[in-house]
Amino acid sequence: MYVIAERINGMFADVKEAIRQKDASVIQDLAARQLAAGASALDVNAGPATSDAVAALLWLAETIRQVTDAPLCIDTAKWEVMKTVLPHVKGEKIINSTKADPEAAMDYIGLAADCKAGLIGLTIDADGVPGNVDKRVELGAQIIALATEAGLPMDRLFIDPVILPVNVAPKNPDHCLQAIGQLKSFADPPPHLLLGLSNVSQRCANRSLINRTYVTMAVAHGLDSAIVDPLDTELMDAVITAELLMGRMVYCDSYLQAACQTEG
Amino acid sequence: MYVIAERINGMFADVKEAIRQKDASVIQDLAARQLAAGASALDVNAGPATSDAVAALLWLAETIRQVTDAPLCIDTAKWEVMKTVLPHVKGEKIINSTKADPEAAMDYIGLAADCKAGLIGLTIDADGVPGNVDKRVELGAQIIALATEAGLPMDRLFIDPVILPVNVAPKNPDHCLQAIGQLKSFADPPPHLLLGLSNVSQRCANRSLINRTYVTMAVAHGLDSAIVDPLDTELMDAVITAELLMGRMVYCDSYLQAACQTEG
Repeated sequence: MYVIAERINGMFADVKEAIRQKDASVIQDLAARQLAAGASALDVNAGPATSDAVAALLWLAETIRQVTDAPLCIDTAKWEVMKTVLPHVKGEKIINSTKADPEAAMDYIGLAADCKAGLIGLTIDADGVPGNVDKRVELGAQIIALATEAGLPMDRLFIDPVILPVNVAPKNPDHCLQAIGQLKSFADPPPHLLLGLSNVSQRCANRSLINRTYVTMAVAHGLDSAIVDPLDTELMDAVITAELLMGRMVYCDSYLQAACQTEG
Repeated sequence: MYVIAERINGMFADVKEAIRQKDASVIQDLAARQLAAGASALDVNAGPATSDAVAALLWLAETIRQVTDAPLCIDTAKWEVMKTVLPHVKGEKIINSTKADPEAAMDYIGLAADCKAGLIGLTIDADGVPGNVDKRVELGAQIIALATEAGLPMDRLFIDPVILPVNVAPKNPDHCLQAIGQLKSFADPPPHLLLGLSNVSQRCANRSLINRTYVTMAVAHGLDSAIVDPLDTELMDAVITAELLMGRMVYCDSYLQAACQTEG
């Protein structure tokens, strides 16, 4: 499982304050703890309230690079910010994210190629998040086709079928499971299939229970990557156990510890 | 989810001793607690060490019937025992189980029809548990065809693709998931798809974690019934959450409690 850690995000109060104060230790500590917990990459988001997103993202990326070579997943919805920041991020990096509209997607795919970056593609277009499985698959396939045409290798493409909260969109989690299964068999080799997991439980009770239950259901349909909180140990244990049950690792009594040492 | 509770089984020391002493209170207490925890039906198994399985099963069934009308799932691998006991079990009942060999299966299907009982059919034949998905689906389809021909309604048939322990058969859990998905779409209306869940974690560390992770993965592929320990509250919470995420119930903040009250 390619785990992208979600905690370095300015929507959290500690990160917001650390950005404001330029307090590197808070950020570096979060980076180290998330990697030790089994994360493969670190999401980096300046948060909605930042006045200068470019400066904040550049500072975050440089601060994290002082302590780790792990891939950084640069997370902003603004194209101007992304294209300014990405070329200055050292080491492995992933664009988070593009939508499926061909014109926008081609800009992002070009940037990914120029910067040798990975790319997360959302199954969203001008009409928003699809209300059925077929449209999700169609938009995912559209991104796969554009990326293939542009020569972006499938192991650098992450298709995200966009999970909505179960309390407002009750059919949505099942739709995403079906879309994951179909998109996984759409290309050979397939792209990564990814979820921004925590959204499934926004404003719900039992958030951790809902998150860890849903991620195992998605792994059962072919999910191999997710943006999650790796400091939620029950969630990470569930992810590792789901991978064991998919035959992706061999059982030993200490399989939970073994997996964390391999991935971390 | 049609939860069949597994604890009234002579392989557990307390039940074995209760059978020997004819101590009704132990059995009736287990029945009540399992139903209160959300079970829909109670498995009844005299255990491997019982000298007179017929007498033990009849006593168990009568003892449980004094406190509940819940369906009883009569669990023995011996045909002679099953055909002697089943007609004397009052109220709703399920045969656990037949294999897929046509001759044996027809005997069990006939007994189910005569006694208006449900029937669990295992995807096992003379060659044992299949080593691939196709053979599992073939054997499940064989039972469905025989039951359909004999007029057994699909809502009384439970197909069990037979899960093996992940530590000895690492590809087996994934095979079962695929078989569940395929068999679920094999008939319309479909039969129930069932697992004897605990077997997936036999002799493993983290048994409860493995059980609850796997059951949610199976629900994601169409499982709608399982033989489990309903007194494992983390497992029951995971099952209910998986059903929520499949859109089988509407979210409210107290959905865990609401589901238990409905099912129990």
